[in-house]
Amino acid sequence: MPTTDVAAVDLSSCCSPLTGGSLEPAAAERLAHIFKALSDPARVRLLSLIAAAEGAEACICDLTEPLALSQPTVSHHMKQLVEAGLVSREQRGKWAYFRVVDRALAQLAAVLTPARTNDPELARSSA
Amino acid sequence: MPTTDVAAVDLSSCCSPLTGGSLEPAAAERLAHIFKALSDPARVRLLSLIAAAEGAEACICDLTEPLALSQPTVSHHMKQLVEAGLVSREQRGKWAYFRVVDRALAQLAAVLTPARTNDPELARSSA
Repeated sequence: MPTTDVAAVDLSSCCSPLTGGSLEPAAAERLAHIFKALSDPARVRLLSLIAAAEGAEACICDLTEPLALSQPTVSHHMKQLVEAGLVSREQRGKWAYFRVVDRALAQLAAVLTPARTNDPELARSSA
Repeated sequence: MPTTDVAAVDLSSCCSPLTGGSLEPAAAERLAHIFKALSDPARVRLLSLIAAAEGAEACICDLTEPLALSQPTVSHHMKQLVEAGLVSREQRGKWAYFRVVDRALAQLAAVLTPARTNDPELARSSA
């Protein structure tokens, strides 16, 4: 499976949320790839660190120390977040700068939001 | 790490969404465990099939054929979804019945929803 297809995934074209009907195999494949990028605690923390950084942007040089990881390890994690389309990367001189792709997170949240619910408390809050 | 802690995770106690500030290591660990349950295309499709089933409940006997997987393989996947707290399981006689935990999905969606955004289109839609 070419990762470029997945990186470029437009979740809005994945017409129905996860729970709105049975998902096509290709859509399930794309979603699983994105969730896989979030399946490692270090990557979850990196995403959170970038989002919390000033200007919602972080230099790779500022991401190694908080996680006590080497720069190659952080680079490896960042590559997976970028490939999943959750983070964008910009090279400026010596350093790479990362930014959370808010739209990708918002679309992923929309996919997870129950289409209909049997939970009375949830039904009330969405009414 | 005991999986029981993770299975019982109340994401609402994970006070801030993913992008609302830098996440505590324990919270990142819990979130990554839940995302890992969703990181396999078969599990994403199983979740979707259960949600789309009549009464939003499915017997394991109805989950093997659509995915062309053996019952032990489906059982293995379901165990991971149950452990992550995304699906509940009820044994009735010979068969296990599964139901999506809407509240867990809704909480996961809330965790992913950007706390603040630099994306003008997203900011407009949430205003």
